[in-house]
Amino acid sequence: MKRKKIVVIGGGTGTYTVLSGLKKYPVELSVIVTMMDSGGSNRVIRDEFGLLPTSDIRQCMVALASNHSSEMLRKLFTYRYNQGTGISGMTFGNLFMAALTDIYGSQEEAIKKTCDILDVRGNIFPVTFDNVHLVARYDNGEQVLGEHFIDEPGEGDGGRKIVELELIPRARANRRALRAIKEADLIVFGPGDLYASVICNLIVDGVAEAVRKSKAKKVYVLNLMTKYGQTDGYKASDHLRDLNKYLGDKAVDAVLVNTNWKFPKGIMARYKQEKAYPIKDDLTTKDAKIVRGNLVSSKIFKKAKSDKLRRSLIRHDPEKVARKLISLL
Amino acid sequence: MKRKKIVVIGGGTGTYTVLSGLKKYPVELSVIVTMMDSGGSNRVIRDEFGLLPTSDIRQCMVALASNHSSEMLRKLFTYRYNQGTGISGMTFGNLFMAALTDIYGSQEEAIKKTCDILDVRGNIFPVTFDNVHLVARYDNGEQVLGEHFIDEPGEGDGGRKIVELELIPRARANRRALRAIKEADLIVFGPGDLYASVICNLIVDGVAEAVRKSKAKKVYVLNLMTKYGQTDGYKASDHLRDLNKYLGDKAVDAVLVNTNWKFPKGIMARYKQEKAYPIKDDLTTKDAKIVRGNLVSSKIFKKAKSDKLRRSLIRHDPEKVARKLISLL
Repeated sequence: MKRKKIVVIGGGTGTYTVLSGLKKYPVELSVIVTMMDSGGSNRVIRDEFGLLPTSDIRQCMVALASNHSSEMLRKLFTYRYNQGTGISGMTFGNLFMAALTDIYGSQEEAIKKTCDILDVRGNIFPVTFDNVHLVARYDNGEQVLGEHFIDEPGEGDGGRKIVELELIPRARANRRALRAIKEADLIVFGPGDLYASVICNLIVDGVAEAVRKSKAKKVYVLNLMTKYGQTDGYKASDHLRDLNKYLGDKAVDAVLVNTNWKFPKGIMARYKQEKAYPIKDDLTTKDAKIVRGNLVSSKIFKKAKSDKLRRSLIRHDPEKVARKLISLL
Repeated sequence: MKRKKIVVIGGGTGTYTVLSGLKKYPVELSVIVTMMDSGGSNRVIRDEFGLLPTSDIRQCMVALASNHSSEMLRKLFTYRYNQGTGISGMTFGNLFMAALTDIYGSQEEAIKKTCDILDVRGNIFPVTFDNVHLVARYDNGEQVLGEHFIDEPGEGDGGRKIVELELIPRARANRRALRAIKEADLIVFGPGDLYASVICNLIVDGVAEAVRKSKAKKVYVLNLMTKYGQTDGYKASDHLRDLNKYLGDKAVDAVLVNTNWKFPKGIMARYKQEKAYPIKDDLTTKDAKIVRGNLVSSKIFKKAKSDKLRRSLIRHDPEKVARKLISLL
């Protein structure tokens, strides 16, 4: 029997989780990765090396590294320096790929070589090879340029809502990404920042159209918490509405929703400090097929000290999410 | 038959050359490496990461990497970044080992892991694990602290001669280095900066004594050119005299001396700009056994643009030097 084809669209920790879970199943796995990150280590990669950002790709590589690959290499690829002027905050993986790009002459080749050495099982497709930046227009008329300013808004910038997300300049989709979408049996969106990790892929020319036309079942893994500056006060239906707006034709067939909210005391207080709250589940079968269940990890995650970005404290569980996704095939 | 044991003492390009040649022979190869470099990439490693310098070790690793090891990894380990504030000028290998040291908790373990991944054939022994600096006292009464100031003197600093090279503070030898010296059949010094690459190893407590006591044959591979600020105006016998001074007991049994001085026009002019001149061969059999021959490579070397240090333009040939050394076993 031919292996079923699953395409995950996203970038960041949520996509890492989904890939980590799915890679244990006998499916052909591909991931289409955002190339719009502009903060932290990626800012240096873009502005000082003149390359495309690679942090999201790096995370996917580690997620899809085979268990036979060197544990040391996998550790290195998740390592972030915490010393050295100009080096602290950089990820080893980004520096690794920057060196390979210089040695082999193209970033595409560097990504391929890195996949080889990590013995990556699956396909990693940058959504575009064009050097582009995100622009968000808000309901108060403001515009913001740059993924990291959208992702990490200033104090008091949370009330506004994103009316439109665009790319400057327009980006052409990676043809291999479009082909993967066309041939997929299942397409997974999220979890992850709705705008900065998921929708940013859909606004690359041709991607939303390819998704709409694909015969694949389309599943959205709903986030656990709202995100300040992107989805303040958003209920589940608001997330789905925005996603469908960029996909068109109410393309999403099913939504995975977590129902387990038993966490240690203090976790929600920490989230409150970041103005993030549990997403209220107001979905009905009119919206899409709703798949509910305990989807969260019992582990509580801590961010690395040298990591200048904020990270989730509670996370989706790779196995639990993968099991539900596979059941939809 | 038991394999003969060869110990190379040095660091830098000269040692790289000797190791590259010797590794093709069925001998047990060890290298004892200087840990006193304080310039360029090593300055960052020492001052900003608080680690011991690793550039000399890195070069030895690449020299001893098996031919079966990944070509990509070997290319990476000789790669020097030329972009990125705080990153330009750093070597990939040093950043690799700095990350591993943080992950595994010790630099010794990081070196071991790196040797594993490069499939290094032979033993690499840092001469000491103590954090020390070189101090040179000159005949004009001046003192200079720091390997890179001795290696790269200021304009007009070349006339003075080094009267004494010391370490601050005193350094204890790596016990495994001492054992290798004890068990060696052949010990090779140089080629390379007489003070900054060779003698700096001998002033670590216990090293010179171990060499003197070793039953091994001791061979000095004489440099091709004098070095401004270290060996201005030095003839071959001056080099040998200084080396024997730190070893004691006229320990050097044999000296390898190049006799081929046919180079393309312009090469010597380039050296003259750096106040470096061919070393005059004034050795006699009273000094030691003198092994003369064509020891140089027909290739002319160019330094990488991003490399802030000066590099030789003509070099010893790995095969020619190795053949002579093996003949002395």
